Amino acid sequence: MDQKEIVSRDEKETGRVEAFSDGVFAIAITLLILDVRVPRDLPETTTLGDALLKQWPSYLAFVTSFALIGIMWINHHKLFTLIKRSDHLLLVFNALLLLGATVVPFTTSLLAEYIGHDEQRVAAMVYMGNFFAIAIFFNLIWRYAAHGRRLLGQDVLEDEVRSINRSYSLGPPIYFLCLVIAYFSAPLALGMTIALVIFYALPLGANSR
Amino acid sequence: MDQKEIVSRDEKETGRVEAFSDGVFAIAITLLILDVRVPRDLPETTTLGDALLKQWPSYLAFVTSFALIGIMWINHHKLFTLIKRSDHLLLVFNALLLLGATVVPFTTSLLAEYIGHDEQRVAAMVYMGNFFAIAIFFNLIWRYAAHGRRLLGQDVLEDEVRSINRSYSLGPPIYFLCLVIAYFSAPLALGMTIALVIFYALPLGANSR
Amino acid sequence: MDQKEIVSRDEKETGRVEAFSDGVFAIAITLLILDVRVPRDLPETTTLGDALLKQWPSYLAFVTSFALIGIMWINHHKLFTLIKRSDHLLLVFNALLLLGATVVPFTTSLLAEYIGHDEQRVAAMVYMGNFFAIAIFFNLIWRYAAHGRRLLGQDVLEDEVRSINRSYSLGPPIYFLCLVIAYFSAPLALGMTIALVIFYALPLGANSR
Amino acid sequence: MDQKEIVSRDEKETGRVEAFSDGVFAIAITLLILDVRVPRDLPETTTLGDALLKQWPSYLAFVTSFALIGIMWINHHKLFTLIKRSDHLLLVFNALLLLGATVVPFTTSLLAEYIGHDEQRVAAMVYMGNFFAIAIFFNLIWRYAAHGRRLLGQDVLEDEVRSINRSYSLGPPIYFLCLVIAYFSAPLALGMTIALVIFYALPLGANSR
Repeated sequence: MDQKEIVSRDEKETGRVEAFSDGVFAIAITLLILDVRVPRDLPETTTLGDALLKQWPSYLAFVTSFALIGIMWINHHKLFTLIKRSDHLLLVFNALLLLGATVVPFTTSLLAEYIGHDEQRVAAMVYMGNFFAIAIFFNLIWRYAAHGRRLLGQDVLEDEVRSINRSYSLGPPIYFLCLVIAYFSAPLALGMTIALVIFYALPLGANSR
Repeated sequence: MDQKEIVSRDEKETGRVEAFSDGVFAIAITLLILDVRVPRDLPETTTLGDALLKQWPSYLAFVTSFALIGIMWINHHKLFTLIKRSDHLLLVFNALLLLGATVVPFTTSLLAEYIGHDEQRVAAMVYMGNFFAIAIFFNLIWRYAAHGRRLLGQDVLEDEVRSINRSYSLGPPIYFLCLVIAYFSAPLALGMTIALVIFYALPLGANSR
Repeated sequence: MDQKEIVSRDEKETGRVEAFSDGVFAIAITLLILDVRVPRDLPETTTLGDALLKQWPSYLAFVTSFALIGIMWINHHKLFTLIKRSDHLLLVFNALLLLGATVVPFTTSLLAEYIGHDEQRVAAMVYMGNFFAIAIFFNLIWRYAAHGRRLLGQDVLEDEVRSINRSYSLGPPIYFLCLVIAYFSAPLALGMTIALVIFYALPLGANSR
Repeated sequence: MDQKEIVSRDEKETGRVEAFSDGVFAIAITLLILDVRVPRDLPETTTLGDALLKQWPSYLAFVTSFALIGIMWINHHKLFTLIKRSDHLLLVFNALLLLGATVVPFTTSLLAEYIGHDEQRVAAMVYMGNFFAIAIFFNLIWRYAAHGRRLLGQDVLEDEVRSINRSYSLGPPIYFLCLVIAYFSAPLALGMTIALVIFYALPLGANSR
């Protein structure tokens, strides 16, 4: 097996990791809608419009989680333009990340069910804990692949590595802060998450990464 | 990094955008069937045939939404034979489009539940609003990518650009008209949508685009 | 745009048709399991083993539909090693085929619910009607693509075309026969379908195609 | 058709087998979360935290099945870096494997429902039986492809073949042992499965394969 064949096998390998991950992200993001329910058997005094509006926590949780999984996908996709080889531990760390993504429809549903109710802080903490774990798994993947440029492509610049190091080191503390805030106030934690999503979507946010 | 490597990285990037979008479209279009329910616990006086026929609004909503998501997929697929690079804002606009597609199973279910009932106009307006938003997101993607040929491939002809400009400018007003009509008559709005789908499916409709 | 570029655009196009179709087949085949339910709240006199065995119609319908969608996927996959270009009508016919595949989880669920009950013949006729429609859509795709070799690759041999013509012409009459038999006896129609699946899975069946 | 064209057709073919299989694995792994339910309508004396903790069998079954399907995917992915051609029987054996994967959300749900209850041994035996069948289907695929190097790439070393032979021959007896243990004790069988998963995830486990 000469050098070129090895390279091509490797690229095929990361190609399939990406394809499988894309599949899991795509399904997790689409399953979110299953928890937005059609109002049925309306009491006589309720209009459909009112019943739909009353479901705002479902819409809010749906859109927030959609955005967060979307950002996860974009990040994953950017990582794998730099990571060019895969090995056993990378697959394991990637599997942990996908586990985190798969759990999102459940924690989203929990948040939508309890927001505005007595127990909303527990629901928000579970939700934030989900994204805190995801941020840690992202760091595991990146630190492992970038350590000594273990799995990076040859054309990756040191500047790119440093820039990702910087932005990834922010993830876990930010989500941990959200988790702590959720212990005191669910709406505040959720509001902070939404602000983060909007900041990220703006071109400004992208450049700062 | 020489020119060729940059091109190949870009193409890989739009390749993954397409793969992820295909996944979301494929899942959204397949989840539609979950809302067509098997009649259970039939009363003694009802045959299964009758019970199945009585569910016609579910079938109608299913087939209409299937066709509309199918058309979305074809359009998306045509766009990305022209768009050859991707950047942060394109990903954000594409995410908005996918959000629109993901919501379709919900609005379809709403339409199927309320068509023929008192509140059908509200349900039809939500449904039409969903596709109106999708038409706007398609325009965002295209206008952004085509502005100054920002993200287009070098081999894209000016005629192709103009032809898509023309047909895309029709989308939002047509769906807005459907939305307005739904305020007055749900069946009329739905009938108009079905006529559009059939027109599109005919070779005639394809040529006019 | 020279000849080579056109070829590469075309191949990318059929590549995305295949990817999207694969997605729909994969989701439809996996959703089938959602209709195999876990027995809950068992009465005291029933063991879990008995409750699981009593659900045999679910398992039978699941395995049969899994096999039929699997065979659809293999056929689709073989077709698109021969079809090298795509156009508007091919996309429309392919969308009809995918519509047929998407409906399978519903008709399977219907069959599983009613087999062994009074109304089983209606359920079996709907089920067979689903696969009869799919067989017709397969013929639409193939006849359209192969007519005057409209969308076939240059390396496709006339013998391959004739061989597919022959085997595809058998599909609609066989499923129509199953549909007619279902009118008289649901178990007989289902038994015939299972025999067909087993015949197809054997190498013998593959060679005769 | 010269040699090179045949090779390229073959590679496209295994490419689509992998893509379809990836889709099925991705969907099956993501559907697992649908069985982790949000606690609703809590009695006044129960906190949300307690209600969530009481659901531990769901989480345990979810994580175990997620890991097992993940390992299946990694194995499948490694196999198809060696298998370079596909034929009818390989497609049939691969379909059987996918059937096994598709059933996992059902057997997982069954395990989660009954673990800790009277009938847990039946549930655990069905669960272990599912993975026993999967191990047999993996062996079918590999033995068939590797027999006389029938479908292997030319660059596959004899050492690689022997190493896979060895590790694959362990799968069926190990899962059969779990099945037998489940007859006596569900927790012991599940514990053994979890130990296997952890052993596999460690780099040690990967090297021994």
